[in-house]
Amino acid sequence: MASNTHRYRILISYDGTDFFGWQRQPNKTQTIQGLLENCLAQIYNQSIALVASGRTDRGVHALNQWAHFDLPEPLTSDLRYKLNRMTPESIVIKELHEAPKDFHAQISALSKCYKYRILTTPVKNPFLERYTWQPGRPLNVEYLQELAETLLGEHDFSSFQSQGTPVTSPVRKMLVSRWVVKTSGILEYQVKGTGFLKQMVRNMVGTMLKLEQLQAPKQELRDILGARDRTLAAAPAPAQGLFLTSVQYPQALDNKCRKL
Amino acid sequence: MASNTHRYRILISYDGTDFFGWQRQPNKTQTIQGLLENCLAQIYNQSIALVASGRTDRGVHALNQWAHFDLPEPLTSDLRYKLNRMTPESIVIKELHEAPKDFHAQISALSKCYKYRILTTPVKNPFLERYTWQPGRPLNVEYLQELAETLLGEHDFSSFQSQGTPVTSPVRKMLVSRWVVKTSGILEYQVKGTGFLKQMVRNMVGTMLKLEQLQAPKQELRDILGARDRTLAAAPAPAQGLFLTSVQYPQALDNKCRKL
Repeated sequence: MASNTHRYRILISYDGTDFFGWQRQPNKTQTIQGLLENCLAQIYNQSIALVASGRTDRGVHALNQWAHFDLPEPLTSDLRYKLNRMTPESIVIKELHEAPKDFHAQISALSKCYKYRILTTPVKNPFLERYTWQPGRPLNVEYLQELAETLLGEHDFSSFQSQGTPVTSPVRKMLVSRWVVKTSGILEYQVKGTGFLKQMVRNMVGTMLKLEQLQAPKQELRDILGARDRTLAAAPAPAQGLFLTSVQYPQALDNKCRKL
Repeated sequence: MASNTHRYRILISYDGTDFFGWQRQPNKTQTIQGLLENCLAQIYNQSIALVASGRTDRGVHALNQWAHFDLPEPLTSDLRYKLNRMTPESIVIKELHEAPKDFHAQISALSKCYKYRILTTPVKNPFLERYTWQPGRPLNVEYLQELAETLLGEHDFSSFQSQGTPVTSPVRKMLVSRWVVKTSGILEYQVKGTGFLKQMVRNMVGTMLKLEQLQAPKQELRDILGARDRTLAAAPAPAQGLFLTSVQYPQALDNKCRKL
């Protein structure tokens, strides 16, 4: 980054249904990063890189995703308004902030929160099809709650890491891991962690529901976690139930940002 | 109807976004009636007509739409299950009832309820894009409430009837007409009437919002209604905010139905 550039961060909400995930794809497939970078390139007549807190997979949603970018000149116009006019209605820029140069959407992130929504009613709901997993059966919440507690704390999460994105360490710390009963038959898994491996939340949810269906001893989840073997866990829960809900940054960095 | 046929009724919920409305189209365009009749034809190897309580327009949703049909033989299998396996996830058959021969989904209907949902927050919400109108500005609820009351009772609603479907009489009676403030910036217009003319709810909502935006004297809505002239009312509110919420039938007929 040249020293004379100006850093900004944006808060983005997107319905991931019709996108191939966050990350730009070389073959011009529709992605959120690709689409937004194209808008910035069109506005500034140069390529401007957008760095998010992390990728979201194909079909996964974000209520609050942060990303930063650098401009050669300070902003003089309402860029948030401009971007919202250019993007499809499935992507909304909620906020735009001036950010300090040491703010980095991915590296500065302390933790992230996700929720996974499941509709448990026997009759499906067409209006929630894009935003829930609908297994069509009731779930044993008490059992699931005990499984969720097993995942709390620091662990090697290799058993819940899908292939494809190598990381230096598979150890992550879960600060929140709980099931919450919502209205209208919706059950929500809420998880907060210092970081997440590829498809980790979906793999955890898929495995918890599989164990619940099999009425397996609760110890099995601990065994799967301890084995650090991806082949022992179940298939990932479908993408449409997963939402990135928030990303936490150090208070000192947030304080140095200024909403435009 | 031949005397030896057997009548059934189904309760249907659909996300209207990707459909050209309820009514079957000759050019094979995707419609809800067309799709369901095709399923029935495939199951029974003959054409079976489906009669709904009324049409919904392109893009309009239904939480609870009723339709009836006749079969030459009594049902012996789980037709609801079969249909739900054949339909896309945007259409769900919630209930299937045996119905008396004098039940007619359209003619027997006493009244219908609709709701129209508006998101009033300045920042749009990508997850409500398919299910709300998002004018992006706050609305004067007290003013709208007074307009809604003007529409209560029996009136000639010609001013709010779009062209295309001739009716014998444009007189309808509104039993409920009110605005309700919901959570998260959603404002909902709820209306119950003995019947509705083509695009009537959307025309009423479009006109109420137009008058609100112009800060027009409240008397104007009464004048528009009294003029019985479609050119005086505003353009219809967009389809995606409208939901058919329920249809009322005589208690005696409901009692003669049996849920399967």
